Amino acid sequence: MEHESLLMLPGPVPVPERVRMVMMRQAINHRGSEFGGIYADCVRILKPLFGTTADIFILSGSGTAAMEAAIANFGRDRKIAALVNGKFGERLYKISQRYGTAIEIGSPWGTPLNLEGLEAQLEGGAEMITLVHNETSAGIKNPAEEVGRLARKYGALFVMDGITSIGGDVVQTDAWGVDVAFVGSQKCLAAPAGLSAVAVNHRAWDCLCEKRPYYLDLASYRKSAGNMPMETPYTPAVALVLALREALLIIEEEGIAARIERHRRLSEAIRVAARAWGLPLFPVLDEKHTYSNTVTAIRYPAGIKDSEMRGRVKKMGIEIAGGQDQLKGKIFRIGSMGAVNAPEILATLAAVEHSLRKLGYLVKDNGIEAACEVLS
Amino acid sequence: MEHESLLMLPGPVPVPERVRMVMMRQAINHRGSEFGGIYADCVRILKPLFGTTADIFILSGSGTAAMEAAIANFGRDRKIAALVNGKFGERLYKISQRYGTAIEIGSPWGTPLNLEGLEAQLEGGAEMITLVHNETSAGIKNPAEEVGRLARKYGALFVMDGITSIGGDVVQTDAWGVDVAFVGSQKCLAAPAGLSAVAVNHRAWDCLCEKRPYYLDLASYRKSAGNMPMETPYTPAVALVLALREALLIIEEEGIAARIERHRRLSEAIRVAARAWGLPLFPVLDEKHTYSNTVTAIRYPAGIKDSEMRGRVKKMGIEIAGGQDQLKGKIFRIGSMGAVNAPEILATLAAVEHSLRKLGYLVKDNGIEAACEVLS
Repeated sequence: MEHESLLMLPGPVPVPERVRMVMMRQAINHRGSEFGGIYADCVRILKPLFGTTADIFILSGSGTAAMEAAIANFGRDRKIAALVNGKFGERLYKISQRYGTAIEIGSPWGTPLNLEGLEAQLEGGAEMITLVHNETSAGIKNPAEEVGRLARKYGALFVMDGITSIGGDVVQTDAWGVDVAFVGSQKCLAAPAGLSAVAVNHRAWDCLCEKRPYYLDLASYRKSAGNMPMETPYTPAVALVLALREALLIIEEEGIAARIERHRRLSEAIRVAARAWGLPLFPVLDEKHTYSNTVTAIRYPAGIKDSEMRGRVKKMGIEIAGGQDQLKGKIFRIGSMGAVNAPEILATLAAVEHSLRKLGYLVKDNGIEAACEVLS
Repeated sequence: MEHESLLMLPGPVPVPERVRMVMMRQAINHRGSEFGGIYADCVRILKPLFGTTADIFILSGSGTAAMEAAIANFGRDRKIAALVNGKFGERLYKISQRYGTAIEIGSPWGTPLNLEGLEAQLEGGAEMITLVHNETSAGIKNPAEEVGRLARKYGALFVMDGITSIGGDVVQTDAWGVDVAFVGSQKCLAAPAGLSAVAVNHRAWDCLCEKRPYYLDLASYRKSAGNMPMETPYTPAVALVLALREALLIIEEEGIAARIERHRRLSEAIRVAARAWGLPLFPVLDEKHTYSNTVTAIRYPAGIKDSEMRGRVKKMGIEIAGGQDQLKGKIFRIGSMGAVNAPEILATLAAVEHSLRKLGYLVKDNGIEAACEVLS
């Protein structure tokens, strides 16, 4: 077995051994009661994580497939207001362009959403809102509850990307007025990559488009999930569903509240270390926006090259993320999602601090020490 | 670990331990040289299995996702002639209806294709042909080469579903004039379910539709595959890609010709046993059509109930398939694809013959004995 880096990325994240173990199992028939029970277990445990009593379906496709399913099933030929303050907001906008009349309501990456702009579009007849709850590209958490209030006020469908928040932060799909929400397997759930889950409520079903894609046709998913045993319309990635169930059982054992608190504390340790180093966090906040609790985006000091810094950290066995697209070279990002623990955070901060020093940046203060204060 | 049935289905099929083992590995970053190399290995080994030098992409979605990718990227708003003599031909027709002007060129399930009907549609301007090479619902192998000749004669794009033939039977994508072909992971390749691979040649690229889906946008796959290291546009199911590579290495070790010969011999053993029992095979052939070499469809004798027969076989630890949709209760199907071997075939035939007897069918002759003649 090759040497594996510790992945401190905003996904994929390390997968607990217990979860990987179940994929060793021989293939089983996905049209049978055992698989139906496994699928039902997943749905049962996902509901409180989503904060919903709505339907939940597991798609054999990544979070991007779930994004497209939401828009293609409920947004075709509709006027879609896409809130964008990072890469994944932009992706929802791009997908919306392929299906409906998409309006980008943008603000610079990592800055607060333009909620006035959203309200103007809703007054102008926008029928769907897309929002990324936790924008990993910029390390900012967007005010989903606030957006939900506007959605309900104007009767627009609210599609919320919870890919990197569900399972690691507080999400209240129903209470916030979200109509369609989704999560990815390889983020806060700490399962292997390749699956996503989509929640769909009655308001969304009432808006189901007549023309829908095939593989991602959520009406087909609904029909098959109603069978006894529960099924998927097409062959699912059985090994990944088995792994997802195991990852969800671990979450159930830890408890949702404890899991969210762990994510909060570990990300706080990273933020405190960055401040000690004298490095600003990337997001620009207002009273409605907060830092992400699952990934921390930190600005590079002048003169430090991304490839050199992340290269050094990698030599110490740890992978952290750089910036994406327009943020390449400007920020680095440390993921703190999934099964992540305090020793992993400390090791990562140690490797980062050492690399900063070696590359000539005079850290203001001892970040490790500051992080220990949070973690102890 | 639960007791596992021996899956003698037309997919999913048992996955060799060596293949399942690699999924135990810790998650790796899919944006890195190691994953790029794994992806490249898969493409390299798949090309001779497809019989193509064209581009091949691995999709994180089942064979149905590959079907849709073929039609959505190259058939939108076009006139599509869908050849149908079974369930999967029908599925391609249904997907075609969602994207273009679909014309069903049907013949009863399990009977020869209506090639005269196809030629008439091509004369009438059909721009795309869809064909299932190996129609598992009926156990019939369709004359892809013949269809390819018509496609080339009329300049239509030829989309061939090789989901259950590629890796288990002779497929010559390039020589037959196929423009888009695809395979599923959990069939003849004996990898876990959840992936598919699509081959796209230059004629297809020349017809790339302007409006395309997002998750299944093959232009995005082409762009990302051109990166160094090779990438997928969205997060792939990494554990399944690792497993697919291992399954393909096993195929390379066995040799393609030897593998195809094994499939031919094992399916011949099943056919010979059915004849000995006095049970007719389901397909109605002509000089252009042959029996499938990866699944055998057998008619039930009068008075034998599908659920009882398959229930008895299952009690002996073996799962065989019934008929789908209109063929429910009329036929049973024995898969012989992937890593299947002679002992598994013999055990299956023994369980079937015993169940037939117990349910009151007087088998004409000893099917096991006849099969042994083929296998020895």
